[in-house]
Amino acid sequence: MEKVYATLITIGDELLIGQVIDTNSAWMAQALNEAGILVRQRISVGDMAPDIVHALEEGAAGSQVVLITGGLGPTADDITKPVLCEYFGGKLVVDAGALNNVKEIFARLNRPLIERNLKQAEVPDVCTVIQNSRGTAPGMWFEKDGVVFVSMPGVPHEMKGMMTHHVLPALQERFALPAIVHRTLLTAGVGESFLADMIQDWEQALPAHLKLAYLPNYGMVRLRISAVGQNKPALEEEVELQFRQLQQLVANYLVTNKDEPMEKVVGRMLLERKATMSTAESCTGGYIAHIITSHAGSSEYFLGSVVSYDNRVKEGLLGVDAGTLATHGAVSEAVVQQMVQGVLAATGTDYAVAVSGIMGPGGGSNEKPVGTVWMAAGSRNKTITQHMHFRFDRRRNTELTATHALNLLRRLILEESPTA
Amino acid sequence: MEKVYATLITIGDELLIGQVIDTNSAWMAQALNEAGILVRQRISVGDMAPDIVHALEEGAAGSQVVLITGGLGPTADDITKPVLCEYFGGKLVVDAGALNNVKEIFARLNRPLIERNLKQAEVPDVCTVIQNSRGTAPGMWFEKDGVVFVSMPGVPHEMKGMMTHHVLPALQERFALPAIVHRTLLTAGVGESFLADMIQDWEQALPAHLKLAYLPNYGMVRLRISAVGQNKPALEEEVELQFRQLQQLVANYLVTNKDEPMEKVVGRMLLERKATMSTAESCTGGYIAHIITSHAGSSEYFLGSVVSYDNRVKEGLLGVDAGTLATHGAVSEAVVQQMVQGVLAATGTDYAVAVSGIMGPGGGSNEKPVGTVWMAAGSRNKTITQHMHFRFDRRRNTELTATHALNLLRRLILEESPTA
Repeated sequence: MEKVYATLITIGDELLIGQVIDTNSAWMAQALNEAGILVRQRISVGDMAPDIVHALEEGAAGSQVVLITGGLGPTADDITKPVLCEYFGGKLVVDAGALNNVKEIFARLNRPLIERNLKQAEVPDVCTVIQNSRGTAPGMWFEKDGVVFVSMPGVPHEMKGMMTHHVLPALQERFALPAIVHRTLLTAGVGESFLADMIQDWEQALPAHLKLAYLPNYGMVRLRISAVGQNKPALEEEVELQFRQLQQLVANYLVTNKDEPMEKVVGRMLLERKATMSTAESCTGGYIAHIITSHAGSSEYFLGSVVSYDNRVKEGLLGVDAGTLATHGAVSEAVVQQMVQGVLAATGTDYAVAVSGIMGPGGGSNEKPVGTVWMAAGSRNKTITQHMHFRFDRRRNTELTATHALNLLRRLILEESPTA
Repeated sequence: MEKVYATLITIGDELLIGQVIDTNSAWMAQALNEAGILVRQRISVGDMAPDIVHALEEGAAGSQVVLITGGLGPTADDITKPVLCEYFGGKLVVDAGALNNVKEIFARLNRPLIERNLKQAEVPDVCTVIQNSRGTAPGMWFEKDGVVFVSMPGVPHEMKGMMTHHVLPALQERFALPAIVHRTLLTAGVGESFLADMIQDWEQALPAHLKLAYLPNYGMVRLRISAVGQNKPALEEEVELQFRQLQQLVANYLVTNKDEPMEKVVGRMLLERKATMSTAESCTGGYIAHIITSHAGSSEYFLGSVVSYDNRVKEGLLGVDAGTLATHGAVSEAVVQQMVQGVLAATGTDYAVAVSGIMGPGGGSNEKPVGTVWMAAGSRNKTITQHMHFRFDRRRNTELTATHALNLLRRLILEESPTA
């Protein structure tokens, strides 16, 4: 069984001027990895025929699988289909299935069907058509000199539908795929270098087919063991053994031994304890509630939030004392203590977090510079607080505040209820 | 003046297994574009020496500028620096400035400095060092056969600091850069194909150095004119002329003639009218508040939100009637009407939006399938509602709900107060 490598090619001028962040590649890479296909490289090029052709050649040179997204729209700037047609030496013909699909979609949306849309049903006569259940542009599967090329739309939910229902199963059938195993843990409260020294002996003794990666992110470090092999159960057992040793070495700093974000860790702890939570957010402006509710099933433990961006909302909905605001300012320990108890009372949850800070770029002062944040985690019986000072931009300061506030809540839950 | 092309290379196994979404490339592409450098391609490879070298060769073949991020950490999996050192034929030496920087950072953080960290101050003796004011890994500027290569850390805020303060100014000095001009507008309520037919004659008459792109996104279509030329003022004038014609052609569907998201459009309208807003969010779980507050200055018009994920919060904080909830269900016109008036009363704002829906994957029924959303926009005098049915995944359904709810508010503001 040989290793099967993939190249991901994303096509579109919007990727080269930075108008769009490429989220497709990460999703595809994850899906391929789970299926035992290793992504070798990712290439993004504009809507330019020579650059697309060069990327196809690059892909074919280093991979057995080349997945292409983008450039399949009905408008003049989208040229992926004619370029592929020429590259694989075919001619465009109408595909009956794709045509029906386009007609059905327009009928359902009650929109007039124009010539331009009918063109979307044309495909090179040298490909196998992959029907698109979520949009008008069909996918196309080509083979050339033993390399599989699949072209899909760039619209994320259309690509995901095709990958899940057609492309991944077909690739698994087409290739004898090796086993790929990953295990990831998350630490908090320790730097990357210090961690590396702590596990140095263990890391150096790792067998060659096991690889360790450090992924520092938002004040916490993720450690990931990756392994490629033949026999999946044996490989899993081997990785599991090493992963257990690693967990013991970093036990003092371990947050979770799963590949999951902090809000999932807290969510699982709440579920296990049949407890609920809410948030009172000033500087994060709803971001903590958003990341919690981005996970399906969060309604089991998350009841709601008060985003008190303005002090009037802190007073009116959270009962923060006007005198405290005047004396200590909105970014203060006293205010987040009142916010957390206020939102517990207003929503009737078991736990809550509250944050108030200055995310930047404006709003800082000498006494409270940009990045100053007060956070509190509270239950009916107890409130704990933390003062942080981040030095980054608005977005990163917001993300760091959310992760650290949820970590504070994690610590409070463990303190109050060590086991579920 | 020749066109100057850039290749962006991002290095790291985490990019190939999809653990991390690459946001650096989009930011760098935007910054380069503004400076008059065209991004030709983006390549992502893992922490593998041959693949890194191949990417460098690819970059040098098609570009005068190669910007590299990632793989500069202090741990064993990061190999970018030794690979670059060998590629450019140098040897590693300690850089005094970088060493001071590392020492200062560790002193400030009060962390013990270990051997591994001191290694970060080593650089190839054939590069110009770019000091890192936001982290420990220095940047490196190389030149070879007329091509500039710059290696920077993958941590976004470190890379951004280096780009802004060192790399972009140095590139502008090194190359005679052409002018690049973009103008973008946003339409709502019309499909991409229909739009294309509407502007077909105008598009076909565009001069060859002006390019039009269609960027459909979340039920709305962005149209972008791009132009490259010598004389910036003349080019701007030419693009402006075409852009004005385009605006007239799509006037009935025009949301904004700036490259800005919907929440900025609404924010600007509120600022102009010295008005304020709040949100009452069920299914979006704080996402609307989050995107509004992700923009600095939003505290001028955004006062706060009630995230009423649970019905108890809808009743308790928004005054939604228990009988209405029982009769119509949480996802209903009657409930979002009460939510929007409830949050207006609770926060004292001039305007508000409210949403309630089923984002998926669970929670749907025959009567109200996944993707069903009711939304309301309200002022003291008026409430308007809209019923939508999205067919996508949780994330996209949430984004679509936010954009369409804010568009509904935009329409209400225009109705009540056509000009500022």
